[in-house]
Amino acid sequence: MPPSIPTTQTVALVRTLGGPVEFVHDYPVQLPGQDEVLAKVLYTGVCQSDLHTRAGTAAGADGKPITAIKLPHIGGHEGVGRIVALGPGIGERDPSIQIGGLVGIRFSSRVCRRCEYCLKGEEQYCQGVGIKPTNHLHHEDGAFQEYVCLDAGYITLLPQDVDPVLAAPTLCAGLTAYKAMKNAEVGVGEWVVVVGAGGGLGQYAVQYALAQGARVIGVDGGQQKRDLVTSFGAQFVDFRETPDVVSKVQEMTACGAHAVIVAAASSAAFAQAASMLRIGGTMCLIGIPPGGGHIETTVAEIVIKGIKIKGNLVGNLGECLAAVELVRTGVVKPKVYVRPFKDLPKVYEELERGDIAGRVVLKIGEDPGANVERASKL
Amino acid sequence: MPPSIPTTQTVALVRTLGGPVEFVHDYPVQLPGQDEVLAKVLYTGVCQSDLHTRAGTAAGADGKPITAIKLPHIGGHEGVGRIVALGPGIGERDPSIQIGGLVGIRFSSRVCRRCEYCLKGEEQYCQGVGIKPTNHLHHEDGAFQEYVCLDAGYITLLPQDVDPVLAAPTLCAGLTAYKAMKNAEVGVGEWVVVVGAGGGLGQYAVQYALAQGARVIGVDGGQQKRDLVTSFGAQFVDFRETPDVVSKVQEMTACGAHAVIVAAASSAAFAQAASMLRIGGTMCLIGIPPGGGHIETTVAEIVIKGIKIKGNLVGNLGECLAAVELVRTGVVKPKVYVRPFKDLPKVYEELERGDIAGRVVLKIGEDPGANVERASKL
Amino acid sequence: MPPSIPTTQTVALVRTLGGPVEFVHDYPVQLPGQDEVLAKVLYTGVCQSDLHTRAGTAAGADGKPITAIKLPHIGGHEGVGRIVALGPGIGERDPSIQIGGLVGIRFSSRVCRRCEYCLKGEEQYCQGVGIKPTNHLHHEDGAFQEYVCLDAGYITLLPQDVDPVLAAPTLCAGLTAYKAMKNAEVGVGEWVVVVGAGGGLGQYAVQYALAQGARVIGVDGGQQKRDLVTSFGAQFVDFRETPDVVSKVQEMTACGAHAVIVAAASSAAFAQAASMLRIGGTMCLIGIPPGGGHIETTVAEIVIKGIKIKGNLVGNLGECLAAVELVRTGVVKPKVYVRPFKDLPKVYEELERGDIAGRVVLKIGEDPGANVERASKL
Amino acid sequence: MPPSIPTTQTVALVRTLGGPVEFVHDYPVQLPGQDEVLAKVLYTGVCQSDLHTRAGTAAGADGKPITAIKLPHIGGHEGVGRIVALGPGIGERDPSIQIGGLVGIRFSSRVCRRCEYCLKGEEQYCQGVGIKPTNHLHHEDGAFQEYVCLDAGYITLLPQDVDPVLAAPTLCAGLTAYKAMKNAEVGVGEWVVVVGAGGGLGQYAVQYALAQGARVIGVDGGQQKRDLVTSFGAQFVDFRETPDVVSKVQEMTACGAHAVIVAAASSAAFAQAASMLRIGGTMCLIGIPPGGGHIETTVAEIVIKGIKIKGNLVGNLGECLAAVELVRTGVVKPKVYVRPFKDLPKVYEELERGDIAGRVVLKIGEDPGANVERASKL
Repeated sequence: MPPSIPTTQTVALVRTLGGPVEFVHDYPVQLPGQDEVLAKVLYTGVCQSDLHTRAGTAAGADGKPITAIKLPHIGGHEGVGRIVALGPGIGERDPSIQIGGLVGIRFSSRVCRRCEYCLKGEEQYCQGVGIKPTNHLHHEDGAFQEYVCLDAGYITLLPQDVDPVLAAPTLCAGLTAYKAMKNAEVGVGEWVVVVGAGGGLGQYAVQYALAQGARVIGVDGGQQKRDLVTSFGAQFVDFRETPDVVSKVQEMTACGAHAVIVAAASSAAFAQAASMLRIGGTMCLIGIPPGGGHIETTVAEIVIKGIKIKGNLVGNLGECLAAVELVRTGVVKPKVYVRPFKDLPKVYEELERGDIAGRVVLKIGEDPGANVERASKL
Repeated sequence: MPPSIPTTQTVALVRTLGGPVEFVHDYPVQLPGQDEVLAKVLYTGVCQSDLHTRAGTAAGADGKPITAIKLPHIGGHEGVGRIVALGPGIGERDPSIQIGGLVGIRFSSRVCRRCEYCLKGEEQYCQGVGIKPTNHLHHEDGAFQEYVCLDAGYITLLPQDVDPVLAAPTLCAGLTAYKAMKNAEVGVGEWVVVVGAGGGLGQYAVQYALAQGARVIGVDGGQQKRDLVTSFGAQFVDFRETPDVVSKVQEMTACGAHAVIVAAASSAAFAQAASMLRIGGTMCLIGIPPGGGHIETTVAEIVIKGIKIKGNLVGNLGECLAAVELVRTGVVKPKVYVRPFKDLPKVYEELERGDIAGRVVLKIGEDPGANVERASKL
Repeated sequence: MPPSIPTTQTVALVRTLGGPVEFVHDYPVQLPGQDEVLAKVLYTGVCQSDLHTRAGTAAGADGKPITAIKLPHIGGHEGVGRIVALGPGIGERDPSIQIGGLVGIRFSSRVCRRCEYCLKGEEQYCQGVGIKPTNHLHHEDGAFQEYVCLDAGYITLLPQDVDPVLAAPTLCAGLTAYKAMKNAEVGVGEWVVVVGAGGGLGQYAVQYALAQGARVIGVDGGQQKRDLVTSFGAQFVDFRETPDVVSKVQEMTACGAHAVIVAAASSAAFAQAASMLRIGGTMCLIGIPPGGGHIETTVAEIVIKGIKIKGNLVGNLGECLAAVELVRTGVVKPKVYVRPFKDLPKVYEELERGDIAGRVVLKIGEDPGANVERASKL
Repeated sequence: MPPSIPTTQTVALVRTLGGPVEFVHDYPVQLPGQDEVLAKVLYTGVCQSDLHTRAGTAAGADGKPITAIKLPHIGGHEGVGRIVALGPGIGERDPSIQIGGLVGIRFSSRVCRRCEYCLKGEEQYCQGVGIKPTNHLHHEDGAFQEYVCLDAGYITLLPQDVDPVLAAPTLCAGLTAYKAMKNAEVGVGEWVVVVGAGGGLGQYAVQYALAQGARVIGVDGGQQKRDLVTSFGAQFVDFRETPDVVSKVQEMTACGAHAVIVAAASSAAFAQAASMLRIGGTMCLIGIPPGGGHIETTVAEIVIKGIKIKGNLVGNLGECLAAVELVRTGVVKPKVYVRPFKDLPKVYEELERGDIAGRVVLKIGEDPGANVERASKL
């Protein structure tokens, strides 16, 4: 191990679900195992699902709280780090993984490569043939720590010239919104409504929609969110000031939107979304309300209007890199606020209140730079 | 008008929504107007939506009962008839429309040709630019009468060699199931579950799914429906005998179906359907429960499993003809029971009890044959 | 007929294929028949296919010259006109067709509404069940005349606030490029190469590609075309100055483009296009070289690189209106040169030399305006 | 190494391109390296590309002969083997890879998992980020030997109950045809023409097309091929007896096929295929003529008929397993002739003459069975 890597580190630890976030300063730094790398975490976004997982209120596919969570728990799955050490087996066959490389610490951490989902490039849904899939939310310690080990076989190598602050939230919020916009299948000049447009996910959805030539209406509440959404070039409807948001959208779009992206996590948002749709339109769900949430849309509306409802859980690694590339080339400019690592508990409170327009990114550690000591491999 | 066409006819009339079906024997036969043909009705299927519309319980897209229904009301939108007279303007420019031709009396009766849905070949959703769209359920008298006028500009010309008894229910039930299977986008060897497999819609869904190479499981109740479904080559799960249908399906399909077609109109069916799906699977909705129905699926399940939900209201004319062609060539063999016109009230009762395995087709009148008197045009 | 409509008009007549364009000033103005409108032509674009059809060198699907062309021939299928009279049957059922309305005179003029292509919304390929399809290039007099009769059943009603000069070439060149870009199925940030980027078709392809978020490289020759293409925001490769265009594109796109749109009509363009493609990429063909042209691409390249080749003949009416909408909203700004009607022979010469960057639009007549005398219907 | 594994083996060696196939009996058996398994080869199909590669006449994407081929060369990329030994690293993390497992020896042998193609599940086109991709045709010794080492990270684990004789040619010929039929995107009841229907690839294309409900016409020559093709349930057109195959197909399909699969490797086949297509139809190319071949289709035909041409090089691993599953469940029953290993040179001669209806499968070695000695790992 290069001498520059400490043996202990500061982490944001949660000992029991629902318990407080505790900063522990002598947590051991793990050594990278076979086919792993060790990354020093630079920045990481703070996602709603970190909040809900910590609280023990995150709903699984069955609508019940997810309880199978590694404890003590270290969250953070929108991290960008720098490779500082290589485990055994790395670099021999694959020279593209080098010390100094920029990497993502994402939701999915290990996948089997063999199940039907891995085989069709939807490895985010890996079902684990042979190897059990893991993620940085439920099974492995995430980016709310200074050093993290990553599987080199499923590594997220980022371009060296991307801004790590902007890349960080793109790895989950950006990817999720990007994938939803792909699922929306809208053409140039078609109407997209983003519900929750000023939040962490929503701001990306707005920008990806604009980038592919859609006409975009953001729905959210408050002046700060209005300012953010209109700064991207979208129109804005403030649900706090608009008595009938559905009618307003129907009027602006001349009969409804081609797609509605529901990036909000409130049940009310889901209730209205389908009614904003044009016949044949598509509703994309990416936020999960506490308790799992229900779609209030009637079967009659789905059938008679011939609409589609699609959900997506993040996206695959290739889509992640495509989403990052749009940030790197400046097509998408996420609004982020950099805050110190120690602010995490406060950020959780603000997230819970829905106060944040855009995304908070925590600064976890100093960047050793691409020329970090090229120590001999372990 | 050729002398063989009477001036009055027998129709099944409903004077008020919720009121009884009354057979009136001196209802006037309409003369075909400009660009219309007059058809003598031979057979017609009896659809759930006839039942609900008559009862005043059919739900619109907003979930509320549809009340804008022409009264007195004559239902029937799965009819096959023979052209017996041509209105002005017919046949001059278009020699393919001839007396003796076999035609369908379908749900959609007139479309505008100019709205965005007509322009993309989804005219069943016509919004009426210039010309108001109509259908044979809410606006125009349908096939529960001996003679009907049809718009030649949107005529459903059927092949002369198709069996009119089998074609009739294909025009709505068959088309709807055909379209749902297209939306399902399943590949050869993939799993399709049809909920309500033994009913009017379901039997078609089962057969179309088998025709495109899917492995099919029908879910329904009772020996008669089991016999029907398995006779097509599908497997069967009896929900009356199976304590946990979802688990059973999950087990038979090794992790869930690629598509579930919900052809039942009971709310319970919708609640379970999503849980029968594999990750990334598609749920197609074609039945509408009284009151509009709700999907009980959680947002969490939709997002985490990345599933799609799609509704469809019948299909377009081209798809209708494709569905009929599969019946004509014997690929699909709908199970039908021919009953006399006068049985309609009894059939409604049986439908309400869910007693019918397959579809009832009413015989409305004798077929004058393709060589019906070629009277000079009106 | 309103007194303001003359009985004779000026037309650009071609008496024999290969013969000269002759301006005839006493050509009769046709009266609109049943279900037709009469339009006064305002502007019309000049398309390569006008040129080739007149010359008798336009190739059919079999590669042989198309000879079944109405003579004398009046070309022009990118026209915008104003409705000045309504034939019998118009307006009764359809109040949206009014005197004063702006209409397109497009390639397709009449379609059957009943063949498989009409039924799936690809009526530009109408095969004529009952009614024989016609177009303004081979069967009916086009927009190189002052007045034209149009089928109200397949009318191209344009928004009243679109600039008729910009709308005109959008009806064929714009539509064709729009459809090709749809076929290309490229995502945001993907690479599109347009070969012949500075021509009438190419300039649209460049702009539609940019509008949907692609990164675009235009290939063409000369400073004027470079200026045009780069003014839209695309990169440019001048084939006159670049020894190896294929290598240049491969280098700029890091392994090839996701799509290449071949809007040039030279055989050399087709030979190179596939080699500019990335694995799995799509080549869209819209220009037809004289003699029909051959793809020089080897079967080996198509198979080993897994590429797709797609052709399209214009697009449907709905796509046409979508393409026009993008011009109306200013997303796409076609470069056009307005020239007087009498310049048509000169424009043909310039087109043949490939001199035109953008599109020439002929001014055919003065616009009577939306408030044109609302004469009583014929 | 278990004592049952010899140190030398018999292989079919080619020392120089164009040179003879030589049976060498003392070729060393390789030991499985890190993350590799050793398989005993049971059966392997003989593919046209083995023939052309050996002869040095196989064309690359640039149409030129592929010369970068490992020498001495051992072909065979349609093999099925039994795992008989595990290299270091295997089985620890992944218990699903066990001695006794049935595995495929396919075209693609190693992929990078990181390039854009790997990331979207099209790893057969791997471009090698970090790790250089290899295949069993050009870079690694294939299945024409008794023992072969395989990368466990990209292993083709087959179901234990599939017939290895039928599975073998499915791994390349079957997969390629399966993928082409997916690309063809035909619906139930639509027309598919398979050119070269009685050959190794063609017989699969015919059966997959039938399985998904298409109406299929096979084109090939001779009674034996007619018998084979019609035994599957397809119609047959003998090009040796039919003066105008294109007209015949046009007539049988009422205006052309929805898809044509060109599974022949003769240039003449390609020249005619597009003309067999219906408007909007799709031509799928899977065979490569010696010299690379050219499509004789004119640009005019592609544009005016709006057709699509798609090539595919095999398919991905997931598609391979799906193709095998259809064989396992008996939906597809490939016609194979089992011949002894030593017949390989003769089989090459027969392939060159086009004599084989179906596929030849060589028996390479005895099957030790699933209960092969479970020796301790190396």
